[in-house]
Amino acid sequence: MSLDPVLARIDADLPAATERLMQLLRIPSISTDPAYKPDCARAADWLAADLRALGFDAAVRPTPGHPMVVAHGGPQGGGGPHLLFYGHYDVQPVDPLALWRRDPFDPALEEGPQGKVIRGRGSSDDKGQLMTFVEAFRAWTSVHGQLPCRITVLLEGEEESGSPSLVPFLKENAAELTAGLAMICDTGLFDHDTPAITTMLRGLLGEEVTITGPDKDLHSGMYGGAAMNPVRVLARIIAGLHDETGRVTVPGFYDGVDELTQQMRDQWQSLGFDAEGFLKSVGLSIPAGERGRSVLEMIWSRPTCEVNGILGGYAGDGFKTVLPSKATAKISFRLVGRQDPLAIRESFRAMVRAQVPADCRVEFHDHGAAPASVMATADPAFDKARGALSDEWPNEAAFIGSGGSIPIAGYFKSILGMDSMLIGFGKDDDLIHSPNEKYDLRSFHKGIRSWARVLAALAG
Amino acid sequence: MSLDPVLARIDADLPAATERLMQLLRIPSISTDPAYKPDCARAADWLAADLRALGFDAAVRPTPGHPMVVAHGGPQGGGGPHLLFYGHYDVQPVDPLALWRRDPFDPALEEGPQGKVIRGRGSSDDKGQLMTFVEAFRAWTSVHGQLPCRITVLLEGEEESGSPSLVPFLKENAAELTAGLAMICDTGLFDHDTPAITTMLRGLLGEEVTITGPDKDLHSGMYGGAAMNPVRVLARIIAGLHDETGRVTVPGFYDGVDELTQQMRDQWQSLGFDAEGFLKSVGLSIPAGERGRSVLEMIWSRPTCEVNGILGGYAGDGFKTVLPSKATAKISFRLVGRQDPLAIRESFRAMVRAQVPADCRVEFHDHGAAPASVMATADPAFDKARGALSDEWPNEAAFIGSGGSIPIAGYFKSILGMDSMLIGFGKDDDLIHSPNEKYDLRSFHKGIRSWARVLAALAG
Repeated sequence: MSLDPVLARIDADLPAATERLMQLLRIPSISTDPAYKPDCARAADWLAADLRALGFDAAVRPTPGHPMVVAHGGPQGGGGPHLLFYGHYDVQPVDPLALWRRDPFDPALEEGPQGKVIRGRGSSDDKGQLMTFVEAFRAWTSVHGQLPCRITVLLEGEEESGSPSLVPFLKENAAELTAGLAMICDTGLFDHDTPAITTMLRGLLGEEVTITGPDKDLHSGMYGGAAMNPVRVLARIIAGLHDETGRVTVPGFYDGVDELTQQMRDQWQSLGFDAEGFLKSVGLSIPAGERGRSVLEMIWSRPTCEVNGILGGYAGDGFKTVLPSKATAKISFRLVGRQDPLAIRESFRAMVRAQVPADCRVEFHDHGAAPASVMATADPAFDKARGALSDEWPNEAAFIGSGGSIPIAGYFKSILGMDSMLIGFGKDDDLIHSPNEKYDLRSFHKGIRSWARVLAALAG
Repeated sequence: MSLDPVLARIDADLPAATERLMQLLRIPSISTDPAYKPDCARAADWLAADLRALGFDAAVRPTPGHPMVVAHGGPQGGGGPHLLFYGHYDVQPVDPLALWRRDPFDPALEEGPQGKVIRGRGSSDDKGQLMTFVEAFRAWTSVHGQLPCRITVLLEGEEESGSPSLVPFLKENAAELTAGLAMICDTGLFDHDTPAITTMLRGLLGEEVTITGPDKDLHSGMYGGAAMNPVRVLARIIAGLHDETGRVTVPGFYDGVDELTQQMRDQWQSLGFDAEGFLKSVGLSIPAGERGRSVLEMIWSRPTCEVNGILGGYAGDGFKTVLPSKATAKISFRLVGRQDPLAIRESFRAMVRAQVPADCRVEFHDHGAAPASVMATADPAFDKARGALSDEWPNEAAFIGSGGSIPIAGYFKSILGMDSMLIGFGKDDDLIHSPNEKYDLRSFHKGIRSWARVLAALAG
């Protein structure tokens, strides 16, 4: 089955494909906020219907949280490869809403400095990305009447909220979901002209810590000085999480953190990463990580600890002289190599407990734990895919690391025994998780073409 | 003019007086939140109308913020005393609303362990308190046709939001507002049976600190490790505000902090203050202030630093792996003796600036500054009032300190050259500034009777 008419079909169909993506982006499928539960279900229904229209046997599968979409297509017998495509249809919350220049769920094509962009929540993370492979399937099916190989699709609705239903779902449906190789589309290009296969993914450990001091909010005049302020306790804990060299102080934290091989260090060096420009683009100039590490190491191969949110006392307009009863922080750790999330959780909790005064209380809330992933780049499929990507883009494709956590790759390996390949077309300036998220129309268009080529390369 | 029929009249009128207070409590006059501006105006109108009904020449006087109520009554000539009565009609915000057992602005009489209580926001701080002197005026006027001495009333609407309009208003109306002595009703009993005249008041310095790191919220995977997290910067600043002995570390902070006289130390010792019970009542057991100080010192005569609120990143339900652009804390200092609020503000800001990394920014927002007050207890009026209070209550009245800040006493002295006497009937368990605020009906009733007696003693 020849590739050229498929690519031509993709080019001709781009306006219609863009409008289909817009339809999906109009559904506010924010998974972390229970108020949007019906919208998550609506997004799943929309995707299942679209996959059915391409000839897939597609179903919306309930979970205790938001549903999964599972679809099966392509030749079911024979000796060709069997690929599992993964994406997620849920999106991040939109606050602070005031910083958006348009309604996050009223997407539009806008002119950007590097061409047209699709603006809207989820345009890049991950609706725009998952629609690149769906549109590639559509073009193959439309031109050749069938897919080039056996394909299973798994679309999740809880990726942005810790994926609580994912592990049980994979376990319960292991036979149905296990393929030869998983294709995960939730990562980025290395730069505007350089496609990438991500071969290292940081893991993620999420913890919420709540310190309770007095059993109610107090008047800071009447009790200030005598009663312990839980914000003071929490601030000391957070301040102690990094030492003066930027290293994380949780005991045992660096167990299982490997140094880069010289080969990988050289390859990264050759990428000519602009660390200064990377920081400057977000208004900073000083790398905040471990002293003596390059910025690429800080974001790709070194573990971190971040406070993602903190709240205590009166945070509204004006001033309230309250001595708060409670203070809460959401704290996450990005993990690398062989770091053990559960061991780090226990060590972190013990470290926190040791700093809580005897008459204060601490509660922990678990927001997920996933180890880092290192991909099986020796599989010949990696070189085939790398060649296909290099045919589509101006520069040769690179093997890179990624600071973001995509726990699914780890679960595919540990639960289904299946390796993953991570290919995506996002860009660093896509503003994912931030106001004014966008996806380059070029990413969308060449992304669809890339998948058409990768399918040809792997099926051939 | 005899006192007994006035006291009898107060007893008979208590149900009607309680209902009048309820009317005032139903007006949600939260001064710090601009959304309640019309309600603040409504509370002022209600009070002016009530004072007019008692024969006062009362007016609602505009300010750039919420209005003042000013009223003049009693014999205008002659040699009797001229007293200025002060209270405030604005109230604290009500959040967290979920912890209230009833609508904060739908007050009711409830049964408490020590008798009936009036439950609702402002019942104690300060609407219930200011109505004690208004009801005393009503009883005097009703029984004798006139007040026992010349009285000016000043009711403020911005006490809970830093009193931005107070100083200009006092300066512009100095001649009209200056009396022989100010009577301030915004303090408490020493305990259930022991009335108090507060002779030491802590001052208050309010600061809001905002740290900006990256110029937008970032994905903590993509940037975590490389970009500075402003919560981390703010936590270090807060953690450094106290040393290991509980002392505040702002340079020069203890300049002008005097040790107690042996006489005052002895009197406080004789009060038999139950420090353990005081902490236990709010769920704590370990005094959090300076090592080696008694709990009464911590709350009455020692300065403090508290975080009243902190917010940064995603604080909603669930988890968001954001690396926040900004983090903000509201920080206040309680001041004593001759501490200079403006010098401390400058020292605090310099200390914070020195801890902000070169590529982060810090902004400060001023939430008011008032020095501590020490009262002129040598004035014979203090002993007269102490005698009058001792006649009403089971125990003799005490001279005490107060941890709360009532800047008005300092302004009366510095701007009008007028001394103040602070008498109030609040209790430590009134939950002011907290959910489920209440005022004992006994405080209200005996408070009204106390003012009737104090008026008789000072006028006689």
